[in-house]
Amino acid sequence: MNNPPKRINELVRKEVRAVSAYCVPNAEGLVKLDAMENPHSLPEKLRQAWLERLAAVEINRYPDPQCRTLKRKLRDIYDINDDHGVVLGNGSDELIQMLALLVGGDGKILLAPTPTFSMYQLIATTTGCQFIGVPLRANFNLDGDALLAAIRKHQPACVFLALPNNPTGNCFAEEIIAEVLKQAPGIVVLDEAYFAFCQRSFLPRLQQFPDLMVLRTLSKSGMAGLRLGLLIAHPHWTEQLEKIRLPYNINSLTQSSVQFYLEHHAVMQQQAMQIIAQREVVFERLRNKPGVHPYPSEANFILFSLEQDAEQIYNRIREQGVLIKNLHHTVALANHLRVTIGSESENEQFLEALNNSLSV
Amino acid sequence: MNNPPKRINELVRKEVRAVSAYCVPNAEGLVKLDAMENPHSLPEKLRQAWLERLAAVEINRYPDPQCRTLKRKLRDIYDINDDHGVVLGNGSDELIQMLALLVGGDGKILLAPTPTFSMYQLIATTTGCQFIGVPLRANFNLDGDALLAAIRKHQPACVFLALPNNPTGNCFAEEIIAEVLKQAPGIVVLDEAYFAFCQRSFLPRLQQFPDLMVLRTLSKSGMAGLRLGLLIAHPHWTEQLEKIRLPYNINSLTQSSVQFYLEHHAVMQQQAMQIIAQREVVFERLRNKPGVHPYPSEANFILFSLEQDAEQIYNRIREQGVLIKNLHHTVALANHLRVTIGSESENEQFLEALNNSLSV
Repeated sequence: MNNPPKRINELVRKEVRAVSAYCVPNAEGLVKLDAMENPHSLPEKLRQAWLERLAAVEINRYPDPQCRTLKRKLRDIYDINDDHGVVLGNGSDELIQMLALLVGGDGKILLAPTPTFSMYQLIATTTGCQFIGVPLRANFNLDGDALLAAIRKHQPACVFLALPNNPTGNCFAEEIIAEVLKQAPGIVVLDEAYFAFCQRSFLPRLQQFPDLMVLRTLSKSGMAGLRLGLLIAHPHWTEQLEKIRLPYNINSLTQSSVQFYLEHHAVMQQQAMQIIAQREVVFERLRNKPGVHPYPSEANFILFSLEQDAEQIYNRIREQGVLIKNLHHTVALANHLRVTIGSESENEQFLEALNNSLSV
Repeated sequence: MNNPPKRINELVRKEVRAVSAYCVPNAEGLVKLDAMENPHSLPEKLRQAWLERLAAVEINRYPDPQCRTLKRKLRDIYDINDDHGVVLGNGSDELIQMLALLVGGDGKILLAPTPTFSMYQLIATTTGCQFIGVPLRANFNLDGDALLAAIRKHQPACVFLALPNNPTGNCFAEEIIAEVLKQAPGIVVLDEAYFAFCQRSFLPRLQQFPDLMVLRTLSKSGMAGLRLGLLIAHPHWTEQLEKIRLPYNINSLTQSSVQFYLEHHAVMQQQAMQIIAQREVVFERLRNKPGVHPYPSEANFILFSLEQDAEQIYNRIREQGVLIKNLHHTVALANHLRVTIGSESENEQFLEALNNSLSV
């Protein structure tokens, strides 16, 4: 067991050998403001009703491969037109992987403005696609000319546009997005993971753009542990994606739990409103700190830059028991950190830890 | 929305366009003996304890991406050596997909004796690999010479051997499997999905064969709805697979529930013993029916051939409320059906429905 079998070099694609696995820092015992989770859990009175629902799930049977009941509820809640298809994934991660496999391999090109959600590039690599990143402007807005020129040059099979973008928190200009939709030679995915905090959406424009796909997730709305993402697109596309989807990819407890949560959608919306209100509080507090420069956000997190060594500040904050996201090593984000909006008291802990760190 | 956008033909690989999605027949209201599910649910006294466990799960947080607690329990229950790595999948389906991506694309060859589990071929297609099936002998034993010749000729990146094989139910000769392990130029996967009903395993031989991987699933042991598969291999392989694995692929409720079930592993073993006993009963009953020829099985299902039109018999059985698996259209399985071993009363319903159908 000392030397790696030589067959690894023979069999595993060199792009896979070259990357590292996605690294999630250990958050044990820390206030967790690194991963865009909703800080609120299900209210106690609903918790018992949820467990009663789970009690009825037949664990020994395979899940419904079509998720029929859940899909009806999702169509209802998200106002999805009957003319459009819906594909469910084990988180939106799995839907991104399905898209890469759909167009897949042979160095087919996935393109996105960068910095953006890191899984687009990682999944491109693990599926044999090639990832092209087109830099955003210094203020993190889309550089329309550069993006359209890159699309003409690289002819991407798929363009990913996150709305709002992660980790920058801003929404790209809708006119430029519409232009990308007109000019792109392939699929254009609008990743609306943070829809709950923003409400801008290209879903109403699916009819207008036949190669548009809208991606949503329930992870940011209090269901990160359940893993459910959905993709909405013209049925000609979803029909193809359904061939790639593993038939039992959404387990029974997730189907049943998301169904339950959506029956209490008003609670989730209420929680999102609280998070939005707290976002404005945290933004103002950050903006008033000398040497701290937050970016306006339409998501449940705030990106900010520091005039001093951000890595050092990140570590000092963590030493005080608060985990945020260090983006110092991401291209174009030197001295940038990202904080997820938590509960009022979690946010206070973060702001205090930041204060203590800056004043050292 | 009338014509498929022409971009589907331009963008989607022709192999994907050519296949159909995996089809699961509607089982509503039927006795379900088609999918190798365990008929027994959790005993009532454990059900409440399981729900109490779930009550503590933080749904609003992402699941542990490393599944640390669950992996420790799995290592303990399955007696997995600390020198070996474990990768968890959203069912073994996802692990097969990870393997295809690991060696992936470019028409790399996945090879298996056929007939076998249909997902090997379907996943090869959706990941850009090429599937080569090597026919089993007429009695469904391995044709060692033909298999080794095919391996020399096609140089497969990965060979799949199901032990016992699905849908035939038999275990291949261990000497031939060992010879495949010695001669194959790539990975050899022993798919031990039905381990609970058979107990033969190549797990103890991982040290001897550095490119052996052992695949297990909890779906046949009463947890089909939870979706958990595991792959055990040398850490040099699992380290590479971990790069392909989507970080949050095992949701929180599955992690917590499987952990709970494994703490009551004796119950699962007891249920497996009941199924094995029922398998022998059903086998004898089938063997004594004129015109019905069951094959001995080491799994939780029985394959049988009929001297009359099996499709007609399949339909008549379904009309009487019992769903089994029709294999009549599978290569080498004309006039073959497969029945999953259910509870005593479910098996009686099947045998009676079969009787009624044969005597028509």
